[in-house]
Amino acid sequence: MTATITAFVSSPDRGRGLARDMRVRWALEEVGQPYNVRLLSFKAMKEPAHLALHPFGAIPTYEEGDLALFESGAIVFHIAERHAGLLPHDANARARAITWIFAAINSVEPPIWDLSLTRIIEGNESWSKQRLPLVEERLRKRLGELSTRLGDADWLDGGFSAGDLMMVAVLLRAKPSGILNEFPKLSAYVARGEARPAYQRAFAAQLAVFTASSANG
Amino acid sequence: MTATITAFVSSPDRGRGLARDMRVRWALEEVGQPYNVRLLSFKAMKEPAHLALHPFGAIPTYEEGDLALFESGAIVFHIAERHAGLLPHDANARARAITWIFAAINSVEPPIWDLSLTRIIEGNESWSKQRLPLVEERLRKRLGELSTRLGDADWLDGGFSAGDLMMVAVLLRAKPSGILNEFPKLSAYVARGEARPAYQRAFAAQLAVFTASSANG
Repeated sequence: MTATITAFVSSPDRGRGLARDMRVRWALEEVGQPYNVRLLSFKAMKEPAHLALHPFGAIPTYEEGDLALFESGAIVFHIAERHAGLLPHDANARARAITWIFAAINSVEPPIWDLSLTRIIEGNESWSKQRLPLVEERLRKRLGELSTRLGDADWLDGGFSAGDLMMVAVLLRAKPSGILNEFPKLSAYVARGEARPAYQRAFAAQLAVFTASSANG
Repeated sequence: MTATITAFVSSPDRGRGLARDMRVRWALEEVGQPYNVRLLSFKAMKEPAHLALHPFGAIPTYEEGDLALFESGAIVFHIAERHAGLLPHDANARARAITWIFAAINSVEPPIWDLSLTRIIEGNESWSKQRLPLVEERLRKRLGELSTRLGDADWLDGGFSAGDLMMVAVLLRAKPSGILNEFPKLSAYVARGEARPAYQRAFAAQLAVFTASSANG
């Protein structure tokens, strides 16, 4: 049964692959599963039909037969658990790969999100400029710790896993600020993720949505 | 093999059960598994021996034979996956319970953390008071959405699961601000979690650590 995911009809990142449907698209491409996409406006995301799928009125969601999921981390894990290619077979290695999924969204994404919040969402508030250095320092500290752990390895723990997929997807959100590039090992890690054919197929698919919506709008 | 977790030797929450080891203790109590605790000072958390276990120098960690994990979400999931009692057997219900683990740490904990950040960590910064209403509004919006989804149910999706465990543990962090109590359904939900014998055993264990450290310090 082909799964259906949701995505922005017109992504606020203008097709740069930073919206959270990208992680799910990428995971589905890695395991070779086709999928359908239902596009949603910001207005439709807050309507009852979508809130029944996603209590916080966001994207992505994942529908497959009777199953409906939300939260990109949960969806990527679900895909990784059901199809070969994103989690190691060894039980301990598998548990560590899952740990990196959680680390990406729980320990690395929050300071990146706080930077977007400070620069963009709170960009016109009186405190934004004053607060920015503190937020940037927190992010640099976290990325420094991650870079130290990665070291010269290609991936976080052995072969490429769902943990790397999620971490690369999260780190990409720190790229526009320029801060990711201050950490050459992490930049190279992200570039390795972006070079994967599955990533490129997913990226092209989400870009095509934005291009079409721009042409139509 | 008995697992060993790490916790603060002297928790900054003064034994109120808000530190992240509490989630792991609670999960272990729910599934009836004994565990050892290794206590760490803030200094020890940043030393190489601990950074080898936890790249971001935090607690909790989880060691069991050759396996070492970090991230409370990953540890709770690991426990729930290996022992009966925290995840439903039905595959779809299990996937939804896992979704709530992710929702707790990815969609509910960040605005709660931002409130602590604004009030405490950035409490002396010039912008703290100005920024606070915005941060509180964001948290109220998210808690309102969660309360709507929970409705009059006892738990988020059928019986108590690891998803509820994580959500209650996260929501407890919004209690000291008084904002949780603005949502009676969520307050009652949290109280149901706190009333569980496993929660109470875990709470007593973490409080005993703080009491001992206070007596010694």
